[in-house]
Amino acid sequence: MLQANASVIIALLMGIAGIVYVKWQLKRVLSCDEGNETMRSIAAAIQEGASAFLSREYRVLAIFVAIVAAIIAAFLAWQTAVCFVVGAVASAGAGYLGMYVAVRSNVRTAAAASHGLHQGLRVAFGSGAIMGMSVVSFSLLGMTILFLIFSGSPEQLTYVTGFGFGASSIALFARVGGGIYTKAADVGADLVGKVEKGIPEDDPRNPAVIADNVGDNVGDVAGMGADLFESYSSSIIAAAALGASLGANSLAFIGLPFLIGAVGVLASLYGIYMVTAEDNWKIRQSTNPVLVLFNKFVTQIDETASLQALLDALRRSVWGASALIVVFSLLAVLLTGVSLNYWFVILVGLVAGNGIAYVTEYYTSYTEKPVKSIAEACQTGPATTIIQGTAVGMMSTVFPVLITAVAILVSIWLGHKADGSITAGLYAVALAGVGMLSTLGVTLATDAYGPVADNAGGIAEMSHLPEEVRQRTDALDSLGNTTAATGKGFAIGSAVLTALALLGAYITAAKIDSLSILAPTMLPGILIGAMLPFLFSAMTMSAVGKAAYNIVLEVRRQFQEIPGLMEGTGKPDYAACVGISTEGALKEMMIPGTMAVVVPLIVGFVLGKEALAGLLIGTTASGFLLAVMMANAGGAWDNAKKWIETGQYGGKGSDAHKAAVVGDTVGDPFKDTSGPSLNILIKLMSIVSLVFASAFGSGWLSF
Amino acid sequence: MLQANASVIIALLMGIAGIVYVKWQLKRVLSCDEGNETMRSIAAAIQEGASAFLSREYRVLAIFVAIVAAIIAAFLAWQTAVCFVVGAVASAGAGYLGMYVAVRSNVRTAAAASHGLHQGLRVAFGSGAIMGMSVVSFSLLGMTILFLIFSGSPEQLTYVTGFGFGASSIALFARVGGGIYTKAADVGADLVGKVEKGIPEDDPRNPAVIADNVGDNVGDVAGMGADLFESYSSSIIAAAALGASLGANSLAFIGLPFLIGAVGVLASLYGIYMVTAEDNWKIRQSTNPVLVLFNKFVTQIDETASLQALLDALRRSVWGASALIVVFSLLAVLLTGVSLNYWFVILVGLVAGNGIAYVTEYYTSYTEKPVKSIAEACQTGPATTIIQGTAVGMMSTVFPVLITAVAILVSIWLGHKADGSITAGLYAVALAGVGMLSTLGVTLATDAYGPVADNAGGIAEMSHLPEEVRQRTDALDSLGNTTAATGKGFAIGSAVLTALALLGAYITAAKIDSLSILAPTMLPGILIGAMLPFLFSAMTMSAVGKAAYNIVLEVRRQFQEIPGLMEGTGKPDYAACVGISTEGALKEMMIPGTMAVVVPLIVGFVLGKEALAGLLIGTTASGFLLAVMMANAGGAWDNAKKWIETGQYGGKGSDAHKAAVVGDTVGDPFKDTSGPSLNILIKLMSIVSLVFASAFGSGWLSF
Repeated sequence: MLQANASVIIALLMGIAGIVYVKWQLKRVLSCDEGNETMRSIAAAIQEGASAFLSREYRVLAIFVAIVAAIIAAFLAWQTAVCFVVGAVASAGAGYLGMYVAVRSNVRTAAAASHGLHQGLRVAFGSGAIMGMSVVSFSLLGMTILFLIFSGSPEQLTYVTGFGFGASSIALFARVGGGIYTKAADVGADLVGKVEKGIPEDDPRNPAVIADNVGDNVGDVAGMGADLFESYSSSIIAAAALGASLGANSLAFIGLPFLIGAVGVLASLYGIYMVTAEDNWKIRQSTNPVLVLFNKFVTQIDETASLQALLDALRRSVWGASALIVVFSLLAVLLTGVSLNYWFVILVGLVAGNGIAYVTEYYTSYTEKPVKSIAEACQTGPATTIIQGTAVGMMSTVFPVLITAVAILVSIWLGHKADGSITAGLYAVALAGVGMLSTLGVTLATDAYGPVADNAGGIAEMSHLPEEVRQRTDALDSLGNTTAATGKGFAIGSAVLTALALLGAYITAAKIDSLSILAPTMLPGILIGAMLPFLFSAMTMSAVGKAAYNIVLEVRRQFQEIPGLMEGTGKPDYAACVGISTEGALKEMMIPGTMAVVVPLIVGFVLGKEALAGLLIGTTASGFLLAVMMANAGGAWDNAKKWIETGQYGGKGSDAHKAAVVGDTVGDPFKDTSGPSLNILIKLMSIVSLVFASAFGSGWLSF
Repeated sequence: MLQANASVIIALLMGIAGIVYVKWQLKRVLSCDEGNETMRSIAAAIQEGASAFLSREYRVLAIFVAIVAAIIAAFLAWQTAVCFVVGAVASAGAGYLGMYVAVRSNVRTAAAASHGLHQGLRVAFGSGAIMGMSVVSFSLLGMTILFLIFSGSPEQLTYVTGFGFGASSIALFARVGGGIYTKAADVGADLVGKVEKGIPEDDPRNPAVIADNVGDNVGDVAGMGADLFESYSSSIIAAAALGASLGANSLAFIGLPFLIGAVGVLASLYGIYMVTAEDNWKIRQSTNPVLVLFNKFVTQIDETASLQALLDALRRSVWGASALIVVFSLLAVLLTGVSLNYWFVILVGLVAGNGIAYVTEYYTSYTEKPVKSIAEACQTGPATTIIQGTAVGMMSTVFPVLITAVAILVSIWLGHKADGSITAGLYAVALAGVGMLSTLGVTLATDAYGPVADNAGGIAEMSHLPEEVRQRTDALDSLGNTTAATGKGFAIGSAVLTALALLGAYITAAKIDSLSILAPTMLPGILIGAMLPFLFSAMTMSAVGKAAYNIVLEVRRQFQEIPGLMEGTGKPDYAACVGISTEGALKEMMIPGTMAVVVPLIVGFVLGKEALAGLLIGTTASGFLLAVMMANAGGAWDNAKKWIETGQYGGKGSDAHKAAVVGDTVGDPFKDTSGPSLNILIKLMSIVSLVFASAFGSGWLSF
């Protein structure tokens, strides 16, 4: 039977394998053609902006991490502080790498698209794969090394929870700050450029245009990556922590989530291979019977591939990886010697993740009824557009909630049947989360591909590439919109399972014996918890407005003070706008961010550990709903506009289109700032509670 | 010591006293001048429309009540079915009376306003007082009579819960149906009348104009009345049911909420007297020292009274009643011989109710920052208007939640300290709800006054009364908007306390011993419960759109088929539009309404009674937040528009005003349909669970 250490070492090795792949793929992407002079200069500006953002952000982050690490070291243990720092660094590193390659792949994707749709896809997807595999590998590597170092003492897993807290803190900055940044730059650029100066979108004369392009990467690459880095790490940590209290066989239970992570790397690599493999590779032409089977399912992507074929290729890569997980996780369960029920639990997670992703796609795709109903409502003006979009967003919560509820119920039931305890049930919930995220390497690749294709389209537009190339980048971009919707579904679904798993781990760690709904502080805790996502969303939405206003002022200043800017002879100071967006975003996110860390601590110390459990339940439930609602309403408004732009209801410029633009603008902070930030809120609050679990008592209000 | 029966008999007598007052006030209001010919003919059309609505609605209701009563008689007990029918009839009766007088006071208010602001106020407030006192008296009378009939058997209180269920069912129709009705008529009238035909608002040629005016009464008088009828009845029932399980002294505990209701009638009558008293009354001129003190605080309302003086008069009437409650409830607590802690609990409820009302006013009044921030955002178009309004609505949830959480915490703590059990704590929560609603007679009067003044303004406008009179009715109307906001705060706050009290009663009645958060079905129950308000809101919002569409078709038909309608020589068929609005509203509310009744039953039977408790908690928490958010966002948008109409940011017709109109239109279904309907959803689900509590087992999924 495979015990904890053996499983962890396998995971460590797979983490290293992932990094080897990342290095190889990185070299491959960077060796691609960078296109002509104009393209390179635009790309350079975006890269410069991204560096400016990262250097500013990491300076603030360093201070934050140092302060929190000191607090942890002082009040809990230095080992936890070390794990916290490692988690922060690993997450930041993965985010840095993902963004580094994304802002270099955009121009290469545009150049490759000159040779065909399939070449563009390979470059952009390769970039996404680097992000996906870095997230998974950095996370596995960090956790396994810390586990092996601090192994032997009984508190080992308590220390390692610090890793999740560190990852969570970075995610907070990346998601909230990034979300504010991207929408502030977007709105700021539009308000002065399009409205006041009358220059087109993506015009290089606009000083905020680069900040806008940087924003896409900041929000959708770095933000999404950090978000899922955290879900991935925390679901494994929560499962391991719960496994540790599962009695006799606990070492096998601790090892299993790591082992699933390890086989997930293999499965994801196969999925990525299914998209990026080229016909002239040796491995593609091998006659070895195993490799023939291995190659049998690989999609043929050549110059004749249609858009639909490419979408199918992306989908099949996820399905291929999932199929491998089904087999590999059975082996993992057999090897660790735990009940076969846990294999079913992993499958439940896998199915639930794909189910939620499917629902998300249904509600946000313009080939389906919900988006069309919004487009129809656009005919009677912006008010009905907003009402119908809100109704669609609210309606779209139904199936994700039912899927999650059933997944939790079945997981708890399977765990309970296998090992007869509530803890086993909670362990199963955590394991379902691990299962949902096991193919993260490839699902994140299909997701992080999107913004690269989006940027490539912008570069093609700005550098006036031939019509045919721009059509191809547009096609790649629209493909990215579909995968982005799916990715958001995964991010939310996994956040909920992770938060609940962390809640279970917290309850175990805080040694709460009976957690009655009727405990005096429970109902107030739940109510306050349910309120926090509303407060948090209100803050982040207002923050976008404030930050955008500062950018408007800066853009106006540059147009006034830089000679020849409007005529195209003066060079705008892109970095200034980037700096202001960054600064504004980081400043505006301090209050909501601090709130996420401080409120659980206040409630835990003042109202006690039971109230804190109530708080977490309330926040998770209402945060889940609000996040799904806002993300899907935003996505649906966006695509209703795109649907009208295909010529429906009068097409571009019609009254219906104007109403749709209002919907889209309202949806921007919904789907790119407030909604996704809630993923972090619910996880961060849970992990803060878990890390500080041992410090909470029964509160000042004891009965 | 006062025992249950004595307290109940006192409450019965006070109920009768209330009805005597209602009869007297009704005679007084109806004897007022009805104005000129034109005014009377407009009023007659509104009255005709209201009758048409009521006759249709009550036909559907009778079928619904009969079916549910049969189910209750078959599966539970015939006594419960009787109580259910009585509750439904009592609520419907109060609603009928309130609406009957409201549609007759509107024209009399307009006529009285010719003689002065204060005369208009007295008539409109008198109409509100009839609504307020009928709700309180009918409820007390119904409950006490049933209590006395079914007294003696141990199940007596279980039977009487049927009264709350009956009231709840009527409330569902009144709120959801009324909410859909009023907004469908509003939108339908505008779309054809203003947009297609170019005739002004409130033009008598528009066949839907009467439906629109009827709608105001349907939603804001009958809907609000039924909503609070239910809160009032259910909070008393829940307290009594919980009191019954409080051991030795249980008879005193059962009696106390009835006694508070009884003294509340007295206090409310004093509050109403403070506004309506005229100087030539004998009682006003009495030299009896008690009556001199009694008169000392009565506001002098004469022809010189300013608008601010009138607002103060309304506020002082609520404060005067509250002050009396402080004294009377101390007597009640001393008479029943329970711990003084329960007196504090009543005060907590009273303070919490006023606190929530104050916050609601702050967030929706255009003299305060939140509404001004929305008006400012209107300058940059409809999108920023919607974003800022949503942010304000979300932000406005913070204090109502904190106030409620503290009220619950303190109540549980006080109850627990007094009688050392969790049930005592829950009893205290229910009692806080009773305390919050103890002054309902007068708070509802200030609230139901609003739509009467609104209608009076419409009648004054349509019948071209002198400028001076219209200014007065406008002033009375704006006063009504302020009190309406306060009333909405009370409705939501009391709904939450009532729902939690009913939850407590359900848990006791279902004999759930340990209700752990970690029970396998609890988390899925909470998640599904939290989702229901989103689903419900999505349905009711879509319903408004569908019903409005049917009215558009009918109005178009009448303009085509009735000769001379546009020229003013043909008479429009108002009743047809009223009928279609009614039918549409009742049809569209069937699915969401049925859902509210059926889902708790399904969850209770399939997932078991623990999951049902989780479901109720989830629904209450997320329903509370969504209701506050939608009501306040809607109110804030409405007043942001009004603020701009005072000349800010370009005033009427400016781009900012156009953006504000979009916000106001989005806010309409938020604040008048979906938001208030959630009050009913959370209470109805709780009371259905309580009524069927004994029938639920541990579900099909036992572990």
